[in-house]
Amino acid sequence: MHVLVIGASGMVGRKLVERLSKAPDVLGTPIRRLTLADAVAPVAPQALTGIAGTLTIDLAASGTAEKLVAERPDIIFHLAAIVSGEAEAEFEKGYAVNLDGSRQLLEAVRMEAMREPYCPRLVFASSLAVFGAPFPERIDDDFLAAPLTSYGTQKAITELLLADYTRKGILDGVGLRLPTICIRPGVPNRAASGFFSNILREPLSGREAVLPVEEGVRHWFAGPRAAVGFFLHAARMETARIGPRRSLTMPGLSATVADQIAALRRIAGDAAVKLIRRERDPLIEQIVSGWPQNFDARRAHELGFRAEADFDEIIRTHIEDELGGRLP
Amino acid sequence: MHVLVIGASGMVGRKLVERLSKAPDVLGTPIRRLTLADAVAPVAPQALTGIAGTLTIDLAASGTAEKLVAERPDIIFHLAAIVSGEAEAEFEKGYAVNLDGSRQLLEAVRMEAMREPYCPRLVFASSLAVFGAPFPERIDDDFLAAPLTSYGTQKAITELLLADYTRKGILDGVGLRLPTICIRPGVPNRAASGFFSNILREPLSGREAVLPVEEGVRHWFAGPRAAVGFFLHAARMETARIGPRRSLTMPGLSATVADQIAALRRIAGDAAVKLIRRERDPLIEQIVSGWPQNFDARRAHELGFRAEADFDEIIRTHIEDELGGRLP
Repeated sequence: MHVLVIGASGMVGRKLVERLSKAPDVLGTPIRRLTLADAVAPVAPQALTGIAGTLTIDLAASGTAEKLVAERPDIIFHLAAIVSGEAEAEFEKGYAVNLDGSRQLLEAVRMEAMREPYCPRLVFASSLAVFGAPFPERIDDDFLAAPLTSYGTQKAITELLLADYTRKGILDGVGLRLPTICIRPGVPNRAASGFFSNILREPLSGREAVLPVEEGVRHWFAGPRAAVGFFLHAARMETARIGPRRSLTMPGLSATVADQIAALRRIAGDAAVKLIRRERDPLIEQIVSGWPQNFDARRAHELGFRAEADFDEIIRTHIEDELGGRLP
Repeated sequence: MHVLVIGASGMVGRKLVERLSKAPDVLGTPIRRLTLADAVAPVAPQALTGIAGTLTIDLAASGTAEKLVAERPDIIFHLAAIVSGEAEAEFEKGYAVNLDGSRQLLEAVRMEAMREPYCPRLVFASSLAVFGAPFPERIDDDFLAAPLTSYGTQKAITELLLADYTRKGILDGVGLRLPTICIRPGVPNRAASGFFSNILREPLSGREAVLPVEEGVRHWFAGPRAAVGFFLHAARMETARIGPRRSLTMPGLSATVADQIAALRRIAGDAAVKLIRRERDPLIEQIVSGWPQNFDARRAHELGFRAEADFDEIIRTHIEDELGGRLP
């Protein structure tokens, strides 16, 4: 089986590739070939020597999609995107990559299929950003996509295209609306959502972190390991069960900052919690107040997608996967 | 004021232009210039001589949108589309006109606005086809757009673009999801929805019509006069009240075929009803069974959009507008 990962250098992309390298039969059929593509030069894990190839690409550029599809990958993971803030600041760039790049990918599959029968599984990383306030208390699977950012608009449009191309039999698409991934490994970043990870990751390693909002703030989360699990499940599941609505809100955990901190206390003690410095930031408070807080992800759950049960599990998984299994 | 009507040769487009010609101040400010554009050569009403210009265009062709926008119309009515059946049969053509043509129009406005401040009102004819089964008993304003046709997909995508371009201050967009227009004037057509009009229009003129479904079939309707009213209201309303969700399900009338026939009997008598020949068509029955039956169009209603109250009003309006005010 030939697997293509577009966006292989991003956080979830890297973790997905790492998982494929550790369990090459995780998709059911052995992977004979793995192509890693990204705007940032991808690095193939050692374990994949001889199987993995890397491509540094501009998905928006003419010919890129055709080149990626010409090798007829059986499974395409499409995680490439200009992130939310950048897509908002750079209107043309956001549309070029997130909309046109995605559409060119679907079109390249259609053209390839016209040449010779071909119908790859295409797993697309969508986003909660397809939703916009005002929200009901719990957002169910029938709630409208009314994005309030260009990024969310581009993701919602790609979801619609994915469904139509799937309905037409051109490809076998599944869109995954990922929860906010927490705990993000790495260093603190300046994304408005960064603090949700910072206040756990930093204290777990004995470092200070800033909490810019009140503890009552609620949001929708999944850990990186669950996120990778979503992609693997989407790649190997029986898609006939999905029906025509091909994009699914992924399961997650609705939790407050207080819930996060309580779990941190249970696992790493008061000393860790004391490393959280409260410093309210009105701008971040305002941005976060427009985000969804809770979902009823029934369809995805019924289709076998699973997230972590609570923040204790998310923290323990982080300690296993990122800290060598123990606290410093 | 300069008004541009794209899709001026279609049924609703022609009725809109006719209304503008009869009441040139209907939009509040006198129309000094009216541009009628369509793939089928538009005909300008006599009353508009000296004001109206006509253009035969291919909206998908390079340069068309720029040319239409270069004259900086204050109000753009965008009704141009490849219809549902054709967009389904001709995948590329449907996307080229309904998606790319619409996007090129929005982009042309953006480019024009970058040259010199410009923010036209853009009223877009969307469709109930953005919705796909299964439906709740009444579809409310928060229900997801999950189209089951390429046409519906293209309309839903244009709605998303319209909202994002409006949010960015590039234009002032309003999308109107029109009910099935009934009674369509003209001759019976072979559209799957045609019978809803045929069974009233033909008997009202003493001719036979075929009813291919059971009388219990329910659907969502508005008359041509209400449809024109939707466009006029959208062109002159205070759009700040709409908020970021710029596409609105238009008010209509949820009625069964039995309701239609009862109204026909009240207005034109048993003789007219006897001209309806029952001849069930399983294919049409199947297509129609996937259509929405009822909406709670609360937002549009609160914003002042109005449809007919019942089928008696729809039939009486047809007699006034199409039959010179009396039955033959």
